[in-house]
Amino acid sequence: MSFFERLGDRIEAADSVLSVGLDPDLSRLPEWLDSDLPRWAFNRRVIDATAEYAACYKPNAAFYEDSDGWRALQETVAYAHGKGVPVLLDAKRGDIGNTARQYARLLDTVDAITVNPYLGGDSLQPFLEREEKGVFVLCRTSNPGGRDFQSLSVGNGVPLYEYVARRVAEWSRGNAGLVVGATAPEELEDLREAVDLPFLVPGVGAQDGNVEAAVEHGLAEGVGLVNSSRGVIFAGEGAGGEGDYFRAVGTAARRTKQRLNEYR
Amino acid sequence: MSFFERLGDRIEAADSVLSVGLDPDLSRLPEWLDSDLPRWAFNRRVIDATAEYAACYKPNAAFYEDSDGWRALQETVAYAHGKGVPVLLDAKRGDIGNTARQYARLLDTVDAITVNPYLGGDSLQPFLEREEKGVFVLCRTSNPGGRDFQSLSVGNGVPLYEYVARRVAEWSRGNAGLVVGATAPEELEDLREAVDLPFLVPGVGAQDGNVEAAVEHGLAEGVGLVNSSRGVIFAGEGAGGEGDYFRAVGTAARRTKQRLNEYR
Repeated sequence: MSFFERLGDRIEAADSVLSVGLDPDLSRLPEWLDSDLPRWAFNRRVIDATAEYAACYKPNAAFYEDSDGWRALQETVAYAHGKGVPVLLDAKRGDIGNTARQYARLLDTVDAITVNPYLGGDSLQPFLEREEKGVFVLCRTSNPGGRDFQSLSVGNGVPLYEYVARRVAEWSRGNAGLVVGATAPEELEDLREAVDLPFLVPGVGAQDGNVEAAVEHGLAEGVGLVNSSRGVIFAGEGAGGEGDYFRAVGTAARRTKQRLNEYR
Repeated sequence: MSFFERLGDRIEAADSVLSVGLDPDLSRLPEWLDSDLPRWAFNRRVIDATAEYAACYKPNAAFYEDSDGWRALQETVAYAHGKGVPVLLDAKRGDIGNTARQYARLLDTVDAITVNPYLGGDSLQPFLEREEKGVFVLCRTSNPGGRDFQSLSVGNGVPLYEYVARRVAEWSRGNAGLVVGATAPEELEDLREAVDLPFLVPGVGAQDGNVEAAVEHGLAEGVGLVNSSRGVIFAGEGAGGEGDYFRAVGTAARRTKQRLNEYR
């Protein structure tokens, strides 16, 4: 069964296309969180509060890049799986040959990964060869600098991001998706016309992207993900204590899910 | 003092532009290496055997992406520093805003890093703001797929990799370099004419790139790096035991340094 088939089942079961970004920035974790592995302790409570609303969890690897971090990530992935929720590692990796194969081993642990296309087709192959896993390739990112290189015309008025999208569609073995930011709604629409791959759409939370466009164009036959990270996991900031904090996190996830469902 | 000034001093002291890639693939480590942290045990012996010939060490992050791996990496960096050799983390990271700032904290540990330009200028800023550190931006990579996107013409016949090079030169605060593969010697020459940034040139070992072009075009006012990874660190494969293994590693480093010096 392919990742996108499994994701489709999960979307149906949870009635949700919400990806919850697990970015446990150590400087923002509540101080009452007393643990040897605070990122794991935090993520576990976030998962308890949000699992029924989540189509998937998306930890960003940047927040786990140390010895304790990798332990916290392993625990987090196992716990999410125990709740029946798939995990997409937002790693944005890209390397060549030998080293790309090494990075692809991250897929032993998670269900899907994000990768960077700059190094070309052979850098993506070790990921795409894992046919039962999902591979989301960066296409048009949600940051202001996303246009610096991605929007350059590479001939006949085709921007680089669209060219990347078309090549990825050729290389896909039914397991490739694209990362397309919600901050560029016209480009989302153009890309949806160009390819029928599922999209992962970040940028609807703290980055204030276009929710309607994210849902309308992000899904391919109903399968795709719209992500919110800080808008969900830190929704309890300012709450009185642990109980209030994670109630607010759960509420934020439920409301975000419902807001997305208005456009499905 | 900037990274490139420090690297220049090291190049002079060691009379070497050799970057030794520390890619301790667990499946290739000698079986007699008995340790709780085999990657650290291996790297320590490689450093002992090669420090006098190395301008810098370049661990590739892909080989350290687990809990023990990050511990091995920390030990390795401290040990290299103890020998007076700078460390360049080959991470090829690239992310946005909040997350890019998190990745930039990897520079707390090492002297320089490689990054991926696809996400544009604002994704590079958190790295470039660290003016005392070095930031090598992927430009023209050494793999066959490097041309899939990097060689696309983005107007007036300028390939994307050259456009990236020129933008990075604008954004540099005296701390940016470029990654340019030795497998594309004409492109190395064109890029050297386009910008005066130092290059990190991989691909002269296992990938059989052009050594003369790597040295002739890779250096900017004598500063730059030419990397060999597997060609050095696994040079002892087939040797009888530990002593022979690391003698062969040391010999490979010395010979590679000398081969590079023929063209300096």
